[in-house]
Amino acid sequence: MAYMQRRSNCPVACALDLAGDKWTLLVVRDLLRGRRTYGELAASPEGIPTNILADRLRRMQAGGLIQATAYQKRPVRYAYALTEKGRGLEDVLSALARWGKRHIPRTRVFPEFSSSSRSSPPGAR
Amino acid sequence: MAYMQRRSNCPVACALDLAGDKWTLLVVRDLLRGRRTYGELAASPEGIPTNILADRLRRMQAGGLIQATAYQKRPVRYAYALTEKGRGLEDVLSALARWGKRHIPRTRVFPEFSSSSRSSPPGAR
Repeated sequence: MAYMQRRSNCPVACALDLAGDKWTLLVVRDLLRGRRTYGELAASPEGIPTNILADRLRRMQAGGLIQATAYQKRPVRYAYALTEKGRGLEDVLSALARWGKRHIPRTRVFPEFSSSSRSSPPGAR
Repeated sequence: MAYMQRRSNCPVACALDLAGDKWTLLVVRDLLRGRRTYGELAASPEGIPTNILADRLRRMQAGGLIQATAYQKRPVRYAYALTEKGRGLEDVLSALARWGKRHIPRTRVFPEFSSSSRSSPPGAR
């Protein structure tokens, strides 16, 4: 995959080159709240199209935001985890969440997310 | 312009519906540092294509992030200003800037920008 050329050296522009789209930060959100597999990431309520999810996971790996580890062979399946760089986006997510809650009517934080970083048991809805 | 359907009620997803793309937050950045006109916004170092700038300004107005005021007639020209909702994105920009400075090599804050909110004197590098 060709690495995107940077538009300027502004840190905001560079950050948006890596994470400035409708989906990447939602994948970061889901990894922060404990999702790990492609299937778990695809199951989020926003309904990310699977080709976009696959593309974003590739870009996020190339950008150093996540790492993939095979947890199964034949067929090979990967678990995804945020790198330290990827986890660093939590502050951006928090700022977006605060802004969304304040300025957009009828938003609702996922229960798993609001209870700090996930007290609900695996598999719970 | 059709208003985008929301993907979920998650405040992060809703925030990204309005501002989650490569360009919108750069326009917010530029308005925060005092740019007002279409020409000033088009002159940023990232080289935003003019059709994209026009589209983003329309979306930002529809989303309540900016308001436009005609400052000249024949031909009519508009000055753009952030609403309170749009100014609220400053925290998101700050978080992105911190993350970019920390995790992306060779970023550099615009002199006008660093002097506005911090200690370096105007024009200082």
